[in-house]
Parts: sequence; C-alpha cells; structure tokens
Amino acid sequence: MGKGTLLYAQSGGVTAVINATAGAVIQAARGRKVKVLAARNGILGALREDLVDTSRESAAAIRALAHTPGGAFGSCRFKLKSLDQDQDKYQRLLDVLDAHDVRWFLYNGGNDSADTALKLSEMARVTGYPLTCIGVPKTVDNDLVVTDTCPGFGSAAKYTAVSVAEAALDVAAMADTSTKVFVYEVMGRHAGWLAAAGGLAGVGKDDAPQVILFPEIAYDEAKFLARVQAVVKKVGWCVVVVSEGIRHADGRFVADAGGGKDAFGHSQLGGVGPLLAATVKDKLGLKVHWTVPDYLQRSARHIASATDLAQAQAVGKAAVDYALAGKNGVMPVIVRTSSKPYRWKIAPAPLADIANREKTMPKVFIDRSGFGITAACRAYLQPLIKGEAPPPYRADGLPDYVRLKNLPVARKLPAWKG
Amino acid sequence: MGKGTLLYAQSGGVTAVINATAGAVIQAARGRKVKVLAARNGILGALREDLVDTSRESAAAIRALAHTPGGAFGSCRFKLKSLDQDQDKYQRLLDVLDAHDVRWFLYNGGNDSADTALKLSEMARVTGYPLTCIGVPKTVDNDLVVTDTCPGFGSAAKYTAVSVAEAALDVAAMADTSTKVFVYEVMGRHAGWLAAAGGLAGVGKDDAPQVILFPEIAYDEAKFLARVQAVVKKVGWCVVVVSEGIRHADGRFVADAGGGKDAFGHSQLGGVGPLLAATVKDKLGLKVHWTVPDYLQRSARHIASATDLAQAQAVGKAAVDYALAGKNGVMPVIVRTSSKPYRWKIAPAPLADIANREKTMPKVFIDRSGFGITAACRAYLQPLIKGEAPPPYRADGLPDYVRLKNLPVARKLPAWKG
Repeated sequence: MGKGTLLYAQSGGVTAVINATAGAVIQAARGRKVKVLAARNGILGALREDLVDTSRESAAAIRALAHTPGGAFGSCRFKLKSLDQDQDKYQRLLDVLDAHDVRWFLYNGGNDSADTALKLSEMARVTGYPLTCIGVPKTVDNDLVVTDTCPGFGSAAKYTAVSVAEAALDVAAMADTSTKVFVYEVMGRHAGWLAAAGGLAGVGKDDAPQVILFPEIAYDEAKFLARVQAVVKKVGWCVVVVSEGIRHADGRFVADAGGGKDAFGHSQLGGVGPLLAATVKDKLGLKVHWTVPDYLQRSARHIASATDLAQAQAVGKAAVDYALAGKNGVMPVIVRTSSKPYRWKIAPAPLADIANREKTMPKVFIDRSGFGITAACRAYLQPLIKGEAPPPYRADGLPDYVRLKNLPVARKLPAWKG
Repeated sequence: MGKGTLLYAQSGGVTAVINATAGAVIQAARGRKVKVLAARNGILGALREDLVDTSRESAAAIRALAHTPGGAFGSCRFKLKSLDQDQDKYQRLLDVLDAHDVRWFLYNGGNDSADTALKLSEMARVTGYPLTCIGVPKTVDNDLVVTDTCPGFGSAAKYTAVSVAEAALDVAAMADTSTKVFVYEVMGRHAGWLAAAGGLAGVGKDDAPQVILFPEIAYDEAKFLARVQAVVKKVGWCVVVVSEGIRHADGRFVADAGGGKDAFGHSQLGGVGPLLAATVKDKLGLKVHWTVPDYLQRSARHIASATDLAQAQAVGKAAVDYALAGKNGVMPVIVRTSSKPYRWKIAPAPLADIANREKTMPKVFIDRSGFGITAACRAYLQPLIKGEAPPPYRADGLPDYVRLKNLPVARKLPAWKG
C-alpha cells in the first residue's frame, strides 16, 4: 500500500440511494487504484477499529449498491463534541486512521455528519496528521444549506408524491359511503420539504392533497378544520399531508406526547397523523383513515427518482476526486444551473458553511393560504422526482438487493474503551 | 339497443387492479358488441339511477384502466338485507335495470358483494325479470372461499413483501445506535394473508420479518415480547409484521380502543402497530419505529404484481363470457392447476358457495412457533407476487393514471327516496 487508504462511512438516517453514493465512491477509488475501507456503523466503526475491506467485494456487488436501499456498512446516530470536550475520541480516531494508513476520510451524512467531518479535519490539521476530510451529502429531509438538494430526498419525494396520488384515487372511490378524509404523515423534523413533495401529486385546483401542513407554519386547529370541511363540501373528500414536525404557535410539537429524544438530542416524533385524524373525526364527525409510512418513505428504492440516483452517484465520484486532489473540509454539493430544462453540476463547498445549519422552506414556496405549495415550489421540486430507476427483480418477485460480504480488516490496536 | 345492456359496478375497498378488471369487462363487452353502463359508487348508483355510459370513453382510456389504481366508477360499503327486509330496494333495482334494458349485472367485490349479486339474481328469478348476475372477485384480504386467490391480493402482497424487505435494510443499518425494533401493520380484519405475505421478504432463518402476528393466533404479550427480545439478542434488531386484526385469547381485538364500526358492521381497526411498538419500548426498553401503510398497500399500482394483474383481467373477461352465456349466480374464480411451475385457469363457481364466507389461513401455513410462515405457505404465496407490471410514467415523474369522463346516462325514473 504505502500510498494510503480511503475510509468511507455512512451516518444518520439511511436513504434509498446512499448505497449508490457508496458504490460510486468505491468505483471511483478503484479507478484511481486507491483502496477503500469502510467503517461499520459510521464514525463508531472508526472509533472501534471495526473496519471492512471493500476490495474483497466483486465488481458486480459494488455495481448492485446502486439499486440497494439501506446502509450497506451500517450507519449511526452519534455526534462528536468539540475538540476540547472529546479530545480522547479525536485522538483515538487519528490512531485508528494512522494504523490503517488512512489519508482520505469521506463521511456520508447530513448536517451533523458534516460537522463531524469538519472537526476531524481540524483535529488532523492541529496535530499535523496528513488527512483530507470530505463530507458527502445525504438526507431525505433536504435540509442541508448551500446544496440545491440532497441525495435521498428526490427518491423520498417521488415515493411521497406517487403514494399520495394513489391513496387519493382510493379515497375518491370510497368517499360516498366511507372514508372522507385521509391523513398522510411525512418525515421532516423542522423542514417541510417532504410535505411539499406530497403537493406534486396533484396539478388541478381541487386535486389531492388539498391540505398540506408544514412545520414552517404554526398549526391552527380551527383554521385546519375549517379548511378540511370546506374541501369535503366542495370535492366530497379531502387528503391531508402533514409533516411530523408541525408545531403550535408557542413552539411545542403537535405530536409531542411522550417526548423521547434520539442520540442527537432531537425529539422523537411520529403520531401526528393519527392525532389529526382523531381530531377530524371528533370535531367534524367525518370518517377518516390515516397512514404513517415512516421508514418506507426513505427506503423505497423500488420507486427511486432517476435524477436523485444520478446525483447520489455524482457526489460520490466527486468526493473521491476532491479527496485525492487534497480539497480538505469540503462537500460536493449540487448546483442547479437551469430549471427549464433542468440542469445541474457538482461543485465543492466548505463544510464550515454547511455543518449544523438547516434549510427550511422559503416563504415563497408556501401559498398564501398556508396549506399549499406555490408554482415556484413546484418548479423547484418537479425535476427532482423525474425519471424512474427500478431495481432488477428476482424470479420470486422481490427486488434483487445485494448483501455485501463486509469482511473485516484485521485490528491493529487495543480495543476502544470509549 | 334492444338486445340489452350490461351493468358493471365496484364494491367494497378498492385495489390496485380492480380497474384492470373493469377495463377487461368493457373490452370484452365491446368485442361482443354489448353496451356497458357503470353504476357510480356500486349498488348505490343502481338504486339512485346514477349510471355512466362507458361507450363514451376512448379505447385508450379503457386500456389505461389496466394501470390505474382506485375505483374508476366509485365504490361503496353498502349491504342489502334479505329479499323480505329490503323488498323496496330490490324492486327499485329491478325498475332501474328494466328502465335501462339491463340484462347482465356484474358486481365486482368481496364476499359481501357476492351476497348482493346472489340476492339480486334470486329477486330477478322470483319476479321473472330476465337478468344474469355475476359476482366478480376482488379483495386485498384474500379471504374469498373457493377461489385460489383474489385479484388485488397479489399486488398488495407484493407491496408488503417489498416494503418489509426495504424497511428491514433500513433497520439493520440503524440498529447499532438507533431503532432496534420495527413494527409494520398490515390490513386483514380476520385473515392473516397479508401478514403472511410480509413473510416473503425474507428467505434465510434470521431474515426479516422475524416475527409475524396473525389474527388466526391469539395474541400473547409475554410470548411476543420474549420472541422479540430473543431476536434482538441474536440478530441485533427485529422486524415485526402485525395484522390489524389480532385478538386476545378472549376474542377482543388488540387494537380495540374506540370501537367504531363501518357500514357493514365491522369494527374500525387500525393502530395496533403503534400500540405494539409502545409495548416493546416500555417493556423491553428498546428503541422502536412503526409504520401503518393503510390505503397505500391496496392502491400501490406502481408495484403491482404482473400475476395479479393478469388474473384481474382474466376474471373480468370471463365474467362477460359467463354473463352472455347466461350462467346466472356464478363467480369466475381462479383455479390453481399447478404450483411448480405455477399455472392457473378461470372457472365458474356458484355465488351461493362464496357469499358471506371467509377463508382464513390454514393451520399448515403457520409454523409451530406461531410467528412465521411454513414452506407450504411460501409455495402458495410466492407465485402470486411474481412479475412486475409498472404503469407508464409522465414526464413529470408521476404515473400516468387515467381519469375517465364518466358521462352520465339520462335518468328515466323518479329520484330514489331510499
């Protein structure tokens, strides 16, 4: 070896196409004769020296990552603190990287992961360890700043738009004697991007979804119920898309019943869909049904967006190019160069501009009623769900998803006692 | 016309392929030069004389029904009582049929709808009105007797198997620091067919779903929790597929909180998924996520089974053949002539043998643990999800679903005062 290895890891909630990024990273590195190690379960695998050797995987297996959802190497929710507070952990990371001759570190995740990559690059600079750190974007929440969109979002958006359109046909058929209101809960802690994507299901004035509830707009029960009632009166039925993260005017999450927290300290949400459904049933006396797709929306590789897939692969390839060119502390971001026709390119952006920030929906993307998307929002979103990229299917009717061998790299250090 | 019209209507919960049956009915009737009227919202449209003229639809629109989910003419949940109890309604139906020269009535639905078709055929016989009634099978619940399977089930089964497989990849990637148990709630009031279909997601011993809860097996919380804990200990995570209709040993639905009823008098279910998730969280202290796909599972035409689609079209064509041949009071059912290779044909079966009965999972389809499917069950289910039949997509990334014109037939009778 001698010339160094590249370490790749996945972090945060996985997506339908994060493995497509991984596959592109490995293919690009192989093309440059660079060996790729992967850390199991994100940065934790680096701390634990729990690494796998991707060079043991066949070219066919690596190609198949492009159509396999989930996280092939495992992910984690684990946030490193400041260099001062977590000095021992950063030192351990450098020890592991050094032991395995790692010269390039690619961390594939959201804004928390960009922060981890940035801090590690700072630590390396402080200590003089020769390391190039790259943050590789990924999140169905679409809430990273600087980049036009985030790999993973387009596919979750396509899943949402298609599912809302299909469910709306069901509700329309049943409304005469059965369900009048259907509530569809989407992910999105603080940003309404996936809720907005539900809006792509309809084109005409009265098409579903007739009501979208964004986390960017304070929830007003009376206004919501009045809107639902008006739609049912006019259309005969109503589809509501609601973001898991909607809040009351005082900032409390509408869904906040238990108040659990995840490892990043975010509230554990879910359940606002059935809650709103019960409100509609009790206050308006209408028959309701509701859905919470939860993980299905972010793992539905079978209905991925071809645009999203291409971007997920492009950021992976660019990340390797930037790493080998020594562009430290950057993220390959998606730059929209034209909306009609849709054109995009990849460019490097400083991690310092991206880490720990969140992009919510701009005001001009939500219509004056507060319950719908504007033409500008549609023009932004539409290209992201364009094109189909179905996985190959096995003879038994299931997608032919790959399971990697994930053979471990021999440990060289004592066990981590973190 | 003079030679008579054929009346087609859709009933009960709609499916991904009930419109494919409708399209096949209309195409077959057009081929025989028979005019097809459709009742809006099932039998209610017949009572209300709310009929549409399908001859006003283009051949392309009728072809597009094959790839459009929902119910193109609207459905209903409405059960006619006995001939004695609902004499006025049956008389009204005969008046409407007579006014529009209807000689053949095709009712597309489940076991309640087979009952309606049967009763109407009896009423016609009693009164001497020349009418041939055919029940056309449809239900994602797969609970009709006599027929090997029900159109609509195979597609919902494929949706379920694919979604469970995809979610399992997500959970496997997250389990180290986040979700350990994922609960997936499927439809199925009294029969565990869709829960069993979730079992197709995995092949190996420890593959997801590691726990399936069937309505055919009494729910035992202690046994369930012990199983989940053992799986998490061995595999690191666990996927649970649960039927909405699981019951305690005393017969109470586990989900029964509110106790609402639908128009057929069935309990309104939903919510057992989050309930089990909370149990796992509280009793085992494990991080959980849950999903309730609800209508998505029965309207997901985008992931329909090609086998299911072919069968939905075949029963539609056969229904027209039987009707025009005067085979009164029958249903075209699917007969499995071979499992390996899978072969099937359509044959007529008396509605009297099918109406108001339910087929639950046979004991030999559930393994000894009570939490999994047997090889026999897999052999039965596997062919039903075989093959893909994606809809065409528009340039904007959404499926190109058709909306019929549904032009009304001029009324000839006074309004119904039912």
